[in-house]
Amino acid sequence: MQNLDRAISFIVECEKLKGVLRRSYLVGIERRENSAEHSWSLAVMAMALMPGTGLDALRVLKMLLIHDIVEIDAGDTFAYAAQDGKVERERLAAERIFGLLDPEVAREFHALWEEFEAGTTPEAAFSNGLDRLMPILQNFRSEGRSWRENGVRYEQVVSRNQPALSAAADGELWAYAKGMIEEARDQGWLPVGGDPHTV
Amino acid sequence: MQNLDRAISFIVECEKLKGVLRRSYLVGIERRENSAEHSWSLAVMAMALMPGTGLDALRVLKMLLIHDIVEIDAGDTFAYAAQDGKVERERLAAERIFGLLDPEVAREFHALWEEFEAGTTPEAAFSNGLDRLMPILQNFRSEGRSWRENGVRYEQVVSRNQPALSAAADGELWAYAKGMIEEARDQGWLPVGGDPHTV
Repeated sequence: MQNLDRAISFIVECEKLKGVLRRSYLVGIERRENSAEHSWSLAVMAMALMPGTGLDALRVLKMLLIHDIVEIDAGDTFAYAAQDGKVERERLAAERIFGLLDPEVAREFHALWEEFEAGTTPEAAFSNGLDRLMPILQNFRSEGRSWRENGVRYEQVVSRNQPALSAAADGELWAYAKGMIEEARDQGWLPVGGDPHTV
Repeated sequence: MQNLDRAISFIVECEKLKGVLRRSYLVGIERRENSAEHSWSLAVMAMALMPGTGLDALRVLKMLLIHDIVEIDAGDTFAYAAQDGKVERERLAAERIFGLLDPEVAREFHALWEEFEAGTTPEAAFSNGLDRLMPILQNFRSEGRSWRENGVRYEQVVSRNQPALSAAADGELWAYAKGMIEEARDQGWLPVGGDPHTV
């Protein structure tokens, strides 16, 4: 087993991710989601969807479990907000937080996080797709609550999510998401028009 | 990919686990932990500790991710409370909740949950060990807050956790936990004596 003291220091540090609030509301529970429980949902969804895909399930689960840990230092950056400085903040966060682990394990976590961020391997593309699908689902099930609170518009949701969702699972995730986004538009939860970069 | 509609129904149902509160308090955050974020922590801890152990990492992560989903129906049963009816409540919960998935996936989830509950394979023993270690760590880092709130005594923590912790990772987890439990006793956070079954 790896060094227990270092793993414990790391896992205690990871408690902080449970205090990083996302903009999304939970389905059926009156509060915003934190990034730790969000990561859990994505991993469970991956478990439910992956059988038969030929994807490396272990790498997908590992990527999803750690993909947001950098937010402990860097904070959650809302998908529809300016992304200025995000890359550098998260890079420094990855160095510090993964650096709490044994060097061998730190390297593995760092490589998984970089693979997720790059989004180019089939496993990373699938993981990124789920990361985009879940908040659309949560918004759709709450009449667009977080979209409405943040003034998000239809075109933004399409342009921000279509590429990553289309690149995963032969377009199936995008087809599903598109249905929700269009119904949200028709229900008036996602207004059409406006500058897509004003939020 | 597996049937997306069924996976989505399942993942929406799983949102409820974020509303199931455990007795443990988070380290450094003033609230009790929910079972979804707890499951995330265990999976991340497993990722940090497993390299080099020879354990089947994928099975460990899957078991830890789903081990508490039955609590959506059955609730969280405090480790030091009476366990009456827990087995039957959880069995019914597993049937209903995993039954939302495609049959093939449902069977896999059910088998993983049963493997975790039995605790006999090396992967399940390791997973159970982490499930015991984490609340001891959280209690230790909060001066025994949840132990004190629930009148838990030193002997209960030892008798309840020693078998599962000793069976994992060549006894390393128990050695670490024992150090925390004894210091908690010496600090007065875990009183000695009393009937170990009164909570």
